[in-house]
Order: sequence, then structure tokens, then C-alpha cells
Amino acid sequence: MTLALLINGESIANLTHAVSASERGLHYGDGVFETMLLTGGGVRFLDDHMLRLETGCQRLGIAAPSPNVLRNDIARVAARLQLAVIKVIVTRGASGRGYRPPESVAPTRIVAAYPAPEPGANEIIVNWRQTRLGRNARLAGIKHLNRLEQVLAQTEPRSGDFDEGLMLDTEGEVVSATAGNVFIVRDGALCTPDLRFCGVRGVMRAQVLRTAGGLGHTVSEEPLWPHDVEQASEVFITNSVRGVRSVAALGDRRWAPGAVAQRLREALQL
Amino acid sequence: MTLALLINGESIANLTHAVSASERGLHYGDGVFETMLLTGGGVRFLDDHMLRLETGCQRLGIAAPSPNVLRNDIARVAARLQLAVIKVIVTRGASGRGYRPPESVAPTRIVAAYPAPEPGANEIIVNWRQTRLGRNARLAGIKHLNRLEQVLAQTEPRSGDFDEGLMLDTEGEVVSATAGNVFIVRDGALCTPDLRFCGVRGVMRAQVLRTAGGLGHTVSEEPLWPHDVEQASEVFITNSVRGVRSVAALGDRRWAPGAVAQRLREALQL
Repeated sequence: MTLALLINGESIANLTHAVSASERGLHYGDGVFETMLLTGGGVRFLDDHMLRLETGCQRLGIAAPSPNVLRNDIARVAARLQLAVIKVIVTRGASGRGYRPPESVAPTRIVAAYPAPEPGANEIIVNWRQTRLGRNARLAGIKHLNRLEQVLAQTEPRSGDFDEGLMLDTEGEVVSATAGNVFIVRDGALCTPDLRFCGVRGVMRAQVLRTAGGLGHTVSEEPLWPHDVEQASEVFITNSVRGVRSVAALGDRRWAPGAVAQRLREALQL
Repeated sequence: MTLALLINGESIANLTHAVSASERGLHYGDGVFETMLLTGGGVRFLDDHMLRLETGCQRLGIAAPSPNVLRNDIARVAARLQLAVIKVIVTRGASGRGYRPPESVAPTRIVAAYPAPEPGANEIIVNWRQTRLGRNARLAGIKHLNRLEQVLAQTEPRSGDFDEGLMLDTEGEVVSATAGNVFIVRDGALCTPDLRFCGVRGVMRAQVLRTAGGLGHTVSEEPLWPHDVEQASEVFITNSVRGVRSVAALGDRRWAPGAVAQRLREALQL
């Protein structure tokens, strides 16, 4: 299922028996991850991904592996690959039973290369998902391993074929796509949810926020509600691997290909 | 770290390389678990644990292994042990990358025996933890693998030595201990949080609710707030492995050994 795999720097031949059964990442989701696109030129936005991983580890009190060690692992699984998705998982490590970690525990790092997804269209069809995201400012923004809500959103019975789904939090605010951030254009200005209670601060989201300013757009992070999305002149979804994808349809609402998203794709060379 | 371990029924000798690196339990916390006490007479409340595991799998859309298969695994890891903690993890299984599970995926079952904790006192000292529990009715009640909030509550810097901690949800309602449910006695009646938004419906909690009625107590499940706990005449914490433990101190508040908890311990033969 992977193209290459390193666990704590060791190349593991037997993929089905690779991780400790005492792994806290398995028992509690006690860790963080990153998903990156490897192209001919290297790993896109690698510095941003490394920084977010480190921030996530700090927030959870996990001793992050040194950036050099992680970069070396990534280079090893990326060797001889032209196009792939690189996933890095860092957990608090393996321990005995119980939520409380031992005083001293060595973090586990899992670095794997997966086949890249087929390049898809720049315009996608999305729906509103029923599964809500719980609010907890303590976990908001970081890309931790507690992702049952996203899994449930992706296992909902669906009435059609959707490329992505938009998720609300338990109070009804718009948060994100199941695997990406959402932006709207309103009176020429870009807005994206502020993620103060939940959601992941995406690397592509940060790139878009930076780049849009340079293109002369007003950008803001603020609470958004479903009607803000439905009334927007343009909606797009960002994801580190898939780039910037314009929403062409959401329920009965249709949008023509978005000019702002197109300018961002060009500026970001996606 | 374990006394015995089975993964999908196979006895794994090399505990450090045992679980697939593609395990959805690791990538997303996509699964459920049970923790049970094995004593000379067998696994305590085994039927209740099996039922909750099945309910959890149903709620998450995971194809639960047959109860007979799980009971057989448990009997095998329990063989020749007199006293131990048995932990069962059932995940959606190993899959490729992405939140959306494949159409067909075989669940993973991990059954392990751990050393039982030292028998502790019936009276314990607890504090309020700062880490809050996010609300999400979709996940409330089941014992899923997304447990970062509990881990964070157990890694908080602490000003003293506490046996357990009480947790509030993000709105300030009392939910539970970090690893157990909480009951209060108020005007002779037993109350415990209703867990409509978060928390785990504990097996010992259900036993106490059943047994207390038989002992002539009024029992209710309802929203509770910190002042309800602090003003209660008696407070106790329930846990499948540790039984019913009376709270002797919480902040400045002290309680004498509780009579209701003592009657419950006797009735439940803990």
C-alpha cells in the first residue's frame, strides 16, 4: 500500500507487521501528521509542513524529532520517486497502558511514500456533510491523529458522487472540507473560517492567505456560516496535495469557473 | 509491556513490530476499545463489555468481529493468568491513505493482557483538570480511540499528587474523570452526568445505576456542574478495572468515607 516506508528510520520490509502494538498513536491517537506532495522539484512547501509538525508536537507536549532527522527520512523514502504523496506521522511513542504517558518516552516517526492521486479537474462538486466537528480550542488548528469525525463524514451514505464535502461544527459554523480548507469570495474579498474552535490550519491555506494579499485581495479569517458560502461569488477548497480547487456545485447552487482561484493557481504554480 | 498479545488471533512474538503501518486505528483513531479486569473467576462484566464494543462498532460503521471470535481471543490471552487487565481494540482495519475507507476492509482486533494495577485505597484525592472535552453527540458514549483530550488532561502540570482528575466539557458541564465516570449523592439520591454530548458510558457506571436502584436509591442521569459536585454529600468515581472509589478531597473540599459507595462496593462484590 506504500511505495516506501521508514519507521524510526528503519526500512521495514514486512508492512503488515511494522508498528508496535503498544503505540500510543494507535491506542489514543496521540500524535500528529503531515501529508505532502513530492514532485520532480522536491517536496512542495516542505518548510511549512515541518514547522506545522513541530508546532503540533509542542501543543501536545510531544518531543518532536529534530527537523534534520525528519528531512533525512523524507529524502530516503522520496529517493528515485518523481511524483508521490509523502506522509509523516509523529507520535508520543510506545508505552504501557493508560492515558498518562511515562516520564520518558521516545517519539515514533513513520515516514511513508504513497502513490500520488490522479490529477483531477480544477472544478469539483461538493455537498454539506451531516457529521459535525466538535469544538475544542485546545486541539484547534493542529493536524493531530484524532480524525474520527472526518472518517465518519467520509462514510456517510451519499445521494450522488461528490469530490469533497463541507463540514460544520456542532454550533453550525462552517469549518472546512473533510480534507482541506475552504475559502469564499465576497465583494471581491477572500474569507476563510478562523478555526478558533476546530479544523486544521492547512499549509495550502497559509500559502493562499499570503499570496492573495500580494495579488491585491483583501483577506480575512472570520466565522462563516452556510449562507455565507451559498451566497459567495466564488468558493474554493485548498489542500496541500490537490492544490486549489474551485467549487462548481453545492446542492442547487452552481458557480462558473472562479477567476480568483485561477489567479491563485497561477501565482502558486499549482 | 504486555503479558500476552494476539493480533487477528495470531500470537505475535515481536511486540515492537506487530501492527500494520497502514492501520486506520493509528492513522485516524478509527476504532474502539475495552478495558476489563480478569480475576480468578474470569473477566468481570464480560457480557457488558462485549455489548458496548459491538454498539461502538455499529455507531462507527465498523464490521464488528463476531463475539465468539473475540471471546476466544480473550480466553487465549487470559489462559494461565489469575489477575490481569485485558484490553481489546477493534479498528476498521488497514487501508490506503485517505479518510474514506475502502468498500471492503477487514477489521483488526488486538487483544492483550497487561499487569493489573496495584490494589489502591477506596478513598482517592482528585482535582479539576484544565483540559476540556469537546462536544459531539455523534461520538458521545462510545469508547473510541480518539483520546487526545484524556491524554492532555493526564499530562497537565500538577501542583500535587492526585489519583484522578475531573473533566468538564467546553461549556463547563461536568462529564467524567479522565478514566472513569463520576457520581454524586444529593439529598440521598444518586446523580451522574447524562453524557449526551461527550464522555464514555462506562460498564461500571451501568452496573452502579442498576444496583443503586435495587438498594432503594433514586438514580438520575442529568447535566451536572462543578458546584453540584462540590456541594454533594458524597462523590465517587467508577471504572471497570478499579471499581467504585470514593472522593475524599477535591480542592479545599473534604468528604468522610462515603456510605453509598461502600454499599455499592459490597453489593457489586468489588
